[in-house]
Amino acid sequence: MPRNLDLLLTVAWENNSVVLIDQTKLPNKLVYVKCKDYREVAEAIKKLVVRGAPAIGVTAAFGLALAAQQSKAKTLPELMTDLDTAFKVLRATRPTAVNLFWALERVMGRAKKAKTLQEAKKAVFDEALKMSDEDINANRQMGANGAKLFRDGDIVLTHCNAGSLATVAYGTALGVIRAARESGKRLSVIATETRPVMQGSRLTAFELQHDGIDVSLIPDTAVGHMMARGAIRRVIVGADRVLRTGHVFNKIGTYQVAILANKHKIPFYVAAPLSTFDFESNPEDVVIEERSVDEVVRVGKKRVAPKGVRVFNPAFDMTPPELITGIITERGVLTPPFEKNLKALLG
Amino acid sequence: MPRNLDLLLTVAWENNSVVLIDQTKLPNKLVYVKCKDYREVAEAIKKLVVRGAPAIGVTAAFGLALAAQQSKAKTLPELMTDLDTAFKVLRATRPTAVNLFWALERVMGRAKKAKTLQEAKKAVFDEALKMSDEDINANRQMGANGAKLFRDGDIVLTHCNAGSLATVAYGTALGVIRAARESGKRLSVIATETRPVMQGSRLTAFELQHDGIDVSLIPDTAVGHMMARGAIRRVIVGADRVLRTGHVFNKIGTYQVAILANKHKIPFYVAAPLSTFDFESNPEDVVIEERSVDEVVRVGKKRVAPKGVRVFNPAFDMTPPELITGIITERGVLTPPFEKNLKALLG
Repeated sequence: MPRNLDLLLTVAWENNSVVLIDQTKLPNKLVYVKCKDYREVAEAIKKLVVRGAPAIGVTAAFGLALAAQQSKAKTLPELMTDLDTAFKVLRATRPTAVNLFWALERVMGRAKKAKTLQEAKKAVFDEALKMSDEDINANRQMGANGAKLFRDGDIVLTHCNAGSLATVAYGTALGVIRAARESGKRLSVIATETRPVMQGSRLTAFELQHDGIDVSLIPDTAVGHMMARGAIRRVIVGADRVLRTGHVFNKIGTYQVAILANKHKIPFYVAAPLSTFDFESNPEDVVIEERSVDEVVRVGKKRVAPKGVRVFNPAFDMTPPELITGIITERGVLTPPFEKNLKALLG
Repeated sequence: MPRNLDLLLTVAWENNSVVLIDQTKLPNKLVYVKCKDYREVAEAIKKLVVRGAPAIGVTAAFGLALAAQQSKAKTLPELMTDLDTAFKVLRATRPTAVNLFWALERVMGRAKKAKTLQEAKKAVFDEALKMSDEDINANRQMGANGAKLFRDGDIVLTHCNAGSLATVAYGTALGVIRAARESGKRLSVIATETRPVMQGSRLTAFELQHDGIDVSLIPDTAVGHMMARGAIRRVIVGADRVLRTGHVFNKIGTYQVAILANKHKIPFYVAAPLSTFDFESNPEDVVIEERSVDEVVRVGKKRVAPKGVRVFNPAFDMTPPELITGIITERGVLTPPFEKNLKALLG
């Protein structure tokens, strides 16, 4: 894997460990966490040390590689039992991100084809590493495809963090912004704070500043106002799951940003690698993860709401296809009607 | 003024002082601040110790009463000079809340009619006290007018705090909810957090809990999602300024809540006493206050965004009349066309 001091590497395999940027410490400290046990990886996913659908997928795959490395199995069936235990622990960490399931199943499928214990261990590791490389390549390709949709001088709103810190590196939505800039277009980014976990303030603002890309922060409440003032030309977000119908599940708040963009006639783009697509589910099948009350009533140690207040804290929402201008993938840009054009794209 | 231990009294005149609930300490501590100098009152308005358009108006009026009391003037012209200095200091505290200007001008107008020093001092004090009583009465009357618009079992979304804590007592938007409950309707309230200053978490959740009204908190990002799920039946908010055309200036985020309500066919009401109406200005005349970067990049002492990031932090936005179902005033409920019906209402 290429190592570049200037490039944020969100998840990496180093010296038989999984090394993660601890995103709960950002933007104040850039700290790396080293996991030597797959259970530590599962905890890291649960606690949002690592987040963002593509990053979670690759991290979970490396978690299986750790499980294979840790296993004291003497036979292939024993190893498969150990891997299956790890699979279940890792799968239970986050209910919405489809890349998590996709990544784990892909690695397990590869392991199941192995004929010997050694072959299976190697297969798990190789597959995880391959997925990590594929992630970076898909982001670069998405960037190249999406950059054409932006014009020099555009002010682009993004919600949550679909950047380097949501992937292995480069990013999906922010990867497109990076590619547009690399192609010579000057873009400015407006990042929403993205309550309650504030991935916009903590992560997007941090990583764009880190890369020298012009970025401003706004409260989530200011999106409509900024659009009404004509201050936003494009919206681009990532996705946690895209259905074949073009329904996009992404960070809570995405749906309302899409409505506001539509109301103000601003193009609304989603950048999502094909690994994020769920070809099976219908909109009503997808479980929206409800997260802890503490994310809303506390910021750090400070209590910002009275004790005992009831809280609704859904982590994701669903944006219907009629609000989406285009979905940028590594194979090209999907436009409506999405279901039909997706079939064509996949050939 | 009636004193009731169960009733939150946001601003009161007691023992020749202005006593304010320190809203920056909520929801953790219910602390009162005593001001003996009008400059302390001005600081309290600036620092959001007291906020909410009607509460600011009455507080500023009491500020003038303090200035009259403090004045060492020996003649009426000297007193008027002192009052005029205080007027300017108090007027400069917040640029958008029209009640502030209205209240200060009303008190000054009364003082200018006085023929002697003593008479002027008394007039300033009497007028401030009268405005405080009028505020409570207007809220009660708005409550009675607005309560009819709600049905038993309604789940009502509110943004920011237009409650007891935004007025002398009882509240505008939350006053309507209180009145609906007093009329026997069971209502549940969903309060948005209202970033960046979190008046929803800190104040609305606090005061509704204090009064035993069912309340749940959601991040500002979850408004669209909750509406799409059918979880919200009505929206009610307050206003910092209402133009004769029905344009409503209120807390940042109100505009987008109104768009989302419109999209989901949910009635959107504004509760505003006539003191909040600005009959002169056009929409483009109103200055939107831009507040400190610190409100966005810090929560308490915790930094939540990287150093040096640019921030846009507008305090208010404008909701156009076509998104508003009705404006509840103490004289009745205004419906579109607002400009025409406002003339009829004022008779």
